[in-house]
Amino acid sequence: MKTLGVIGGLGPMATVYFMQLVTEMTDAKTDQEHIPMVVHSLPQIPDRTAYLLGTSTENPVPQIVECGKKIENTGVDYIAIPCITAHALFDDIQESLETPVLHIIRETADYLEREGVRVVGLEATDGTINAGVFQKELEQRGIRVVLPSEEKQKMVMHIIYNNVKAGLRADMERFQLVETELLVKGAEVIILGCTELSMLSRDEKIGHGYLDAMEVLARAAVLNCGKLKAKYQRLLT
Amino acid sequence: MKTLGVIGGLGPMATVYFMQLVTEMTDAKTDQEHIPMVVHSLPQIPDRTAYLLGTSTENPVPQIVECGKKIENTGVDYIAIPCITAHALFDDIQESLETPVLHIIRETADYLEREGVRVVGLEATDGTINAGVFQKELEQRGIRVVLPSEEKQKMVMHIIYNNVKAGLRADMERFQLVETELLVKGAEVIILGCTELSMLSRDEKIGHGYLDAMEVLARAAVLNCGKLKAKYQRLLT
Repeated sequence: MKTLGVIGGLGPMATVYFMQLVTEMTDAKTDQEHIPMVVHSLPQIPDRTAYLLGTSTENPVPQIVECGKKIENTGVDYIAIPCITAHALFDDIQESLETPVLHIIRETADYLEREGVRVVGLEATDGTINAGVFQKELEQRGIRVVLPSEEKQKMVMHIIYNNVKAGLRADMERFQLVETELLVKGAEVIILGCTELSMLSRDEKIGHGYLDAMEVLARAAVLNCGKLKAKYQRLLT
Repeated sequence: MKTLGVIGGLGPMATVYFMQLVTEMTDAKTDQEHIPMVVHSLPQIPDRTAYLLGTSTENPVPQIVECGKKIENTGVDYIAIPCITAHALFDDIQESLETPVLHIIRETADYLEREGVRVVGLEATDGTINAGVFQKELEQRGIRVVLPSEEKQKMVMHIIYNNVKAGLRADMERFQLVETELLVKGAEVIILGCTELSMLSRDEKIGHGYLDAMEVLARAAVLNCGKLKAKYQRLLT
């Protein structure tokens, strides 16, 4: 049994849901078979998208690294960051920490490659899309990425910031419009590429054809630190 | 804004749900308005009920205190332990820590006193019932406690250990039998006095007349560390 560190609070509910997924995916019949976790949930870390788009000059990396070092000092084996946008800054974070940080985007790209997916749709923040990490990792594996149009991307951002982060229910009508567009563009699978969008796969009936990147991260954490329940070998809805 | 420490993993899903409740109950429109948390989830801490009943000699207190000290060293303002059974050992834990630990049983008793409740039913582990902390705190406030019969108490333990801790759905037929007995005995409200039972109020339709002690703890944590949403002023279902 290994210990999992979590740099959390980005956002806070995504961190809770990530921990829930890790707990649910662990093959355990008693408390004692579960994975120990050290979690620092610091919602005050500056907004990642605002920094990546240049609308804020507050770099979140120093606080993420400081948080990671505190977790590292307690003696964890792996660190997870349940915030996809932060992975645009992954190299700056990993190079300041000694503990291996699980990379949610690479894990997702690896998973899709193993599943033989050729074209994926991507729903993510402007920050993530702009940084291009998903596109780079997927294209390196021969997977083509289709993105929402400008108008549909605004709908994705609305759902993330005005709905989920505000503690409100997601606008499922707009969500459906984004889905339709990505399917028409040829997506075989749509990546929920923002941990706030994972809340939709928890709370709403979103139907088939989605891959929740946060589930991929939770699965990777369990595979590295504990024992995975057989039914979570495959994640595609 | 204050920082909340959480001694967790007792059990692991209860910790996740506690963090979810704290997040949901916080009046916040952005990530940055949420309460920072430092959580050590250590499911390997020995079983509390087994120790309290003398079926195990492994005292969980040293590990709980060690975990609490690590959390304390990061500079938290309050500590919560989302495990009711552990509160039978509260004094041993609090005297080894400098940070105030929120007392889930006292908070629950205070809440019921303010609500003017006169007779409560209690569903909890054998360890908690045997330790008598709920009974003492409630009776001090003039509230009479009714307990399940031996047969019904076995049903409560079955639900906690063989269902919830085993990751299975709760046996709602047995749950209903316990409810009926406690109501016949005069309970105006039934306390869900084990954090594993709180999972039922999350996942099942349990109806009116329950007070989930974990919700009381989450509410107390938010009142102490952040800003409570108005709708969580009252918790009785």
